[in-house]
Amino acid sequence: MTIEYEQLPKNDANYVPLSPVSFLHRTADIYPESESLIYNDIRFTWAQTRARCVKVASSLAQRGLGKNDTVSVFAHNTPEMYEAHFAVPMAGAVLNTINTRLDADTVAYIIDHAESKLFIVDRGLWPVLEQALSIATIEPEVILIDDEYADPSEKHTVPMVSSYDDLIEQGDPNYQWSLPEDEWQALSLNYTSGTTGRPKGVVYHHRGSYLMTMGTIASWNVPHMPRYLYSVPMFHCNGWGHAWTMAAKAATVVCMRAFEPRLFFQLLDKHEITHFGGAPIILNMLANAPSDQQRTFDRTIHAMTAGAPPPAAVLQSMNAFGFEVMHVYGLTESYGHILQAAPQLTWQDESLEAQAELKSRQGVRFAMTEAVDVINTDTEKAVPHDGETMGEIVIKGNTLMKGYLKNSVETDKAFQNGWFMSGDLAVIHPDGYIQVRDRAKDIIISGGENISSVEVENVLYKHPAVGEAAVVAMPDEKWGEVPCAFVELKPEEAASEQELIDFCAENMARFKKPKKVVFGALPKTATGKIQKTVLRAQTK
Amino acid sequence: MTIEYEQLPKNDANYVPLSPVSFLHRTADIYPESESLIYNDIRFTWAQTRARCVKVASSLAQRGLGKNDTVSVFAHNTPEMYEAHFAVPMAGAVLNTINTRLDADTVAYIIDHAESKLFIVDRGLWPVLEQALSIATIEPEVILIDDEYADPSEKHTVPMVSSYDDLIEQGDPNYQWSLPEDEWQALSLNYTSGTTGRPKGVVYHHRGSYLMTMGTIASWNVPHMPRYLYSVPMFHCNGWGHAWTMAAKAATVVCMRAFEPRLFFQLLDKHEITHFGGAPIILNMLANAPSDQQRTFDRTIHAMTAGAPPPAAVLQSMNAFGFEVMHVYGLTESYGHILQAAPQLTWQDESLEAQAELKSRQGVRFAMTEAVDVINTDTEKAVPHDGETMGEIVIKGNTLMKGYLKNSVETDKAFQNGWFMSGDLAVIHPDGYIQVRDRAKDIIISGGENISSVEVENVLYKHPAVGEAAVVAMPDEKWGEVPCAFVELKPEEAASEQELIDFCAENMARFKKPKKVVFGALPKTATGKIQKTVLRAQTK
Repeated sequence: MTIEYEQLPKNDANYVPLSPVSFLHRTADIYPESESLIYNDIRFTWAQTRARCVKVASSLAQRGLGKNDTVSVFAHNTPEMYEAHFAVPMAGAVLNTINTRLDADTVAYIIDHAESKLFIVDRGLWPVLEQALSIATIEPEVILIDDEYADPSEKHTVPMVSSYDDLIEQGDPNYQWSLPEDEWQALSLNYTSGTTGRPKGVVYHHRGSYLMTMGTIASWNVPHMPRYLYSVPMFHCNGWGHAWTMAAKAATVVCMRAFEPRLFFQLLDKHEITHFGGAPIILNMLANAPSDQQRTFDRTIHAMTAGAPPPAAVLQSMNAFGFEVMHVYGLTESYGHILQAAPQLTWQDESLEAQAELKSRQGVRFAMTEAVDVINTDTEKAVPHDGETMGEIVIKGNTLMKGYLKNSVETDKAFQNGWFMSGDLAVIHPDGYIQVRDRAKDIIISGGENISSVEVENVLYKHPAVGEAAVVAMPDEKWGEVPCAFVELKPEEAASEQELIDFCAENMARFKKPKKVVFGALPKTATGKIQKTVLRAQTK
Repeated sequence: MTIEYEQLPKNDANYVPLSPVSFLHRTADIYPESESLIYNDIRFTWAQTRARCVKVASSLAQRGLGKNDTVSVFAHNTPEMYEAHFAVPMAGAVLNTINTRLDADTVAYIIDHAESKLFIVDRGLWPVLEQALSIATIEPEVILIDDEYADPSEKHTVPMVSSYDDLIEQGDPNYQWSLPEDEWQALSLNYTSGTTGRPKGVVYHHRGSYLMTMGTIASWNVPHMPRYLYSVPMFHCNGWGHAWTMAAKAATVVCMRAFEPRLFFQLLDKHEITHFGGAPIILNMLANAPSDQQRTFDRTIHAMTAGAPPPAAVLQSMNAFGFEVMHVYGLTESYGHILQAAPQLTWQDESLEAQAELKSRQGVRFAMTEAVDVINTDTEKAVPHDGETMGEIVIKGNTLMKGYLKNSVETDKAFQNGWFMSGDLAVIHPDGYIQVRDRAKDIIISGGENISSVEVENVLYKHPAVGEAAVVAMPDEKWGEVPCAFVELKPEEAASEQELIDFCAENMARFKKPKKVVFGALPKTATGKIQKTVLRAQTK
């Protein structure tokens, strides 16, 4: 042992806390005149974006805000929302973005739980906040985002408060921002939507978001100066961390206040977009949009999608538009995507349908993800790579939350034996690709056999008349549980209950076919997740 | 303050030490059948490379080697050298690669200073090692790399020792490698060539090489599965860290035992190389190779070069070959490149000559470099961005050495006031790009004015007859010091002393012109650096 290797301690030059804020400063230094943000007629350069963020950070600091102080933002994907991802941590504070579809009661809960010191709100969301403030115990200062591009119906009257523009005007352009002392310091706070109970506050650290950026660049092959359309809500896992990733690559980021297929296609075209992210519902809406709204592109547009795998039909539409879709997997707790359906060269030789199947799997780990496995939670052993044996996805890596704020019970449940327990059930295929079968709580146990609700849903989606489908467990005297399907048909399409049951029986193991089909609109959470708890209640 | 943000400690799932070894495991998991290494007729896949590395690591561990134990490697760019970059740290030990051109006395010094426990040597270098071992106090176990592709003249007889192949054969394929407990743990030890005195041992840590990889991918835009020709010696800053970077991107790495222009062009062609790195001397040799050895390519081949900026004429040759050259700057102490001449879009409008000038600057920071500045070391203030005021380059970031092994005096000199002091003198241009003027100790002070020896050399290089040039200070009664040029003319070219002095006077401030020109071959160090100390001695 050459013990002197140990006698070289860290110093301020060779050990700098990792923080995604560093990427903004580098890009503003090197490409000051490049366009950073476009929002309708508003255009900023990277020098301007940095200057605005520094001034906002200064105004936060002037108010005494700093380390471990929560700044909540309740807003759409406007430039202010983007800037908050840098301005708030530059002041040392914690960014708490809030889902714009939440109700006043939940917003009040978040304000109190997070101990919000400052609350930045889009004028359009004021009525919800006004009601929330009447419920909450904590009284944060309110700052108004007054978006000129909001719909007239959103321009609510708000009592005298400071505006976001005031933060900029009153900010010191020479404010001495600093990196956190410790890269483990809290960077942001994201409440999970939680289909039952109160939302949990997921805490991100600076190190994690720095590495999320680097790993996303490496594994999504993000080029220099991409043109990115921000269609993923930034309140969702900090927009998958892409606010920081795009700054690191000197991107031009195009903001979108609200998603709408016609506008989306227009923006792709007008701003020569090269990259975007979107939940499957976004891809669905694009695939099903009226053809006079759709556009096709000669160039490749890289799309990242997470959540339920896009059905083959949707993937085919995407190909026709010119989109190269990368299917990814992640959770709020993992800063977003940590697995990707990274394509293999050999896939090119497969049929389009087989390719869609291969690409619909959640895949393999991103560069910053240290380990992912699927384990039998009883034996704690990894499942065989047989594509059949189900287990729980477990994750290890530096893009995992610090924990749930003020909730050591749930934090301890989430971290077990050196793993983060995802709560998702999956199989591993012989090629090592992971495929999610179900949320642990959504699995249907019928006569002692596991039936994945997602598997049944995927078969239903292949039926040409099915628009949306959800399958839940229904109590059954003989089998314990049996699958019950809830289906929303496509407009102007028709199918009978028996027809769909037969279709399932023909396309999967017969014992997995739903015993009942209920037609109608599906209940959803604020983030667009189908509320299976509501459906389960209907089966009882 | 929401103090509960602090009450979420690190655990084994959400905090994993950063180590470049992780990249090999990810790539071997995801792309097991992709080609990792090519060396003459030898070809490995990533699964094979990992398996070989695990077995070598196991053999090291069987010998009791682990944390803070030094494993020296004295070898050319063969697969064994590449594998050592993973196998040695996988066992927890420290990789000490040694310059193949060093003399026995210096190798003996390194063995003793590093306390080498194991010494892996290419058969061709045995005579140097044999002599070194007779001088050194420490007696490491010797392991032989028996390269079948070595020249017959290199096949020296070596007394009975284990071979590298024995390490593989005796290794346990199921050896449980582990990441370091602490990412600050020593990863490698690189001795600087040092033009005077004993070499200093620069210690790298795992965190630094992990981030070097990620930052290189982000800022050199390394694509998925590049095809990389390893022409940079891996003993030099661990081959600029590209051994690890290429593993992270699932590259195919082509090994080259010795650089030779004809072979180089053949390999570029045969293996469809997309990326390589090379010192300016390499680019020079390619530019000046006989035209029947040169080849041009339709595709773009990305070349990284460090050290003296390539003269415009060389850059033009590179363009003609199809090479896109990225000029970078770094030191052994900074793991290699930390600045790059990142091109700006506006440069396209400039003349080719102006572009060469812009690209020849050392540039702006890489994504993982936190801060670089040029400061007046008397006032500790940054110099103005005027392209004229000289100061010392100072660096802050996570790719800086832990320090010099067993040398706290030099370590303390290197780190001052939160900066690493590079010892290089430079200016900052109005666009923020840094340009190196000279090593601090090579500056010529003439009549109180600073003359950059590099600036005079750059002018000399523009003269069509000049092959290589070095300028040093010569004592002068009137001016204190004046520039003296040492010039090696190109074959079959001629120029007189007066002609070169006049050429300099016409192309730069007259007071900077050399007062004397000496013709002849230039003395060089083992790494090919011109030995200015030798030249300075000749002027006295």
